[in-house]
Amino acid sequence: MMLDPDDLSPRERYRIMIGAIVPRPIAWVSSMDAKGRLNLAPFSFFNAVCANPPTLMFCPGVRPSGEPKDTWRNILEVPEFVVHLPNQETAEAMNRSATEFSRDVSEFEWAGVTPIPSDAISVPRVAEAPVAFECTLHQIAVINEGPGGGAAIFGEVQRIHFHDGIYDDGRVDLDRYQPIGRLFGSQYSRVTDTFDMVRLPVPDDAS
Amino acid sequence: MMLDPDDLSPRERYRIMIGAIVPRPIAWVSSMDAKGRLNLAPFSFFNAVCANPPTLMFCPGVRPSGEPKDTWRNILEVPEFVVHLPNQETAEAMNRSATEFSRDVSEFEWAGVTPIPSDAISVPRVAEAPVAFECTLHQIAVINEGPGGGAAIFGEVQRIHFHDGIYDDGRVDLDRYQPIGRLFGSQYSRVTDTFDMVRLPVPDDAS
Repeated sequence: MMLDPDDLSPRERYRIMIGAIVPRPIAWVSSMDAKGRLNLAPFSFFNAVCANPPTLMFCPGVRPSGEPKDTWRNILEVPEFVVHLPNQETAEAMNRSATEFSRDVSEFEWAGVTPIPSDAISVPRVAEAPVAFECTLHQIAVINEGPGGGAAIFGEVQRIHFHDGIYDDGRVDLDRYQPIGRLFGSQYSRVTDTFDMVRLPVPDDAS
Repeated sequence: MMLDPDDLSPRERYRIMIGAIVPRPIAWVSSMDAKGRLNLAPFSFFNAVCANPPTLMFCPGVRPSGEPKDTWRNILEVPEFVVHLPNQETAEAMNRSATEFSRDVSEFEWAGVTPIPSDAISVPRVAEAPVAFECTLHQIAVINEGPGGGAAIFGEVQRIHFHDGIYDDGRVDLDRYQPIGRLFGSQYSRVTDTFDMVRLPVPDDAS
């Protein structure tokens, strides 16, 4: 079965992309505008980029109204943000922060989470999140500023926070972390059904 | 627990990022150099970007030797590629294609998969992959060309392929698709342990 995106509405394309590109990690991002008003919102178009410098990225979209998401607008005003990773324990709070309020409303309060000072940047972080990356803005690659468009926001990691016991001796403990992934619609996945595949070495007879 | 990336080696930073940013979707990317030699390799620093235009991105790294991955070099020569999504059935083949051969060797053969012509681009796709996005290069955001660095390669989707039964009536069927996610080390996850959370509407008393 073959589809040409030109024959699909942006909504249909979006549904295909979020259905096919799974499971997605979730960036739970705190940001702040020039007036100091806080925002907290989840983004599942998110990933690591490279380790040197330590860089990650997430992609806020443009609303159907043509307005970019508050997080994007905030980062243009204050070029810092914290990328948290939610887990099973904080999943409900993360989901509450996805409700799209006006800029006057802080999702921290609505989500029932606690803003605490960051170490290297001015934007607070979420005390309850098991993992947090304090970031400064590296660059923004704008794909399309019109409705349905989006941008990739790259952050350089300045500090990394883990709740006790999650990171130990160079290793993340999945059983303590209990991470979650984003699927589509209202669906999420736990990371409990795992398997191993060892990368194979180059065989002796390869050219 | 707080860590400053400046106190960590690039390898330690990498381990933290791949341990914390989970589960990651897997881009199984076919590309071609100017001589027509094919490459196939998996990348888990990957995600959708936006639907208008339909855009996705993945991040090849720079090897410790300072050489960019073959996929990156190929796309500079032939600015087209196919992003496939592997699943449980094609996991082993995907893992075989992760072996780092010289540019002379096609991972298609070593992985035991079949190159078939794409519809809109010159780079072949993998017949066995359940989902494939034919892409043209949109842009490359280079973070660092040195060892441990990387780039974000953005592709604009030109065609979408699904094996029969996976996409139907605007919906991806997870039971037929059987997608997999990347964790760290040799670990992967199946998407079988799922749960639902409905996004909440803005409450009546919000300002």
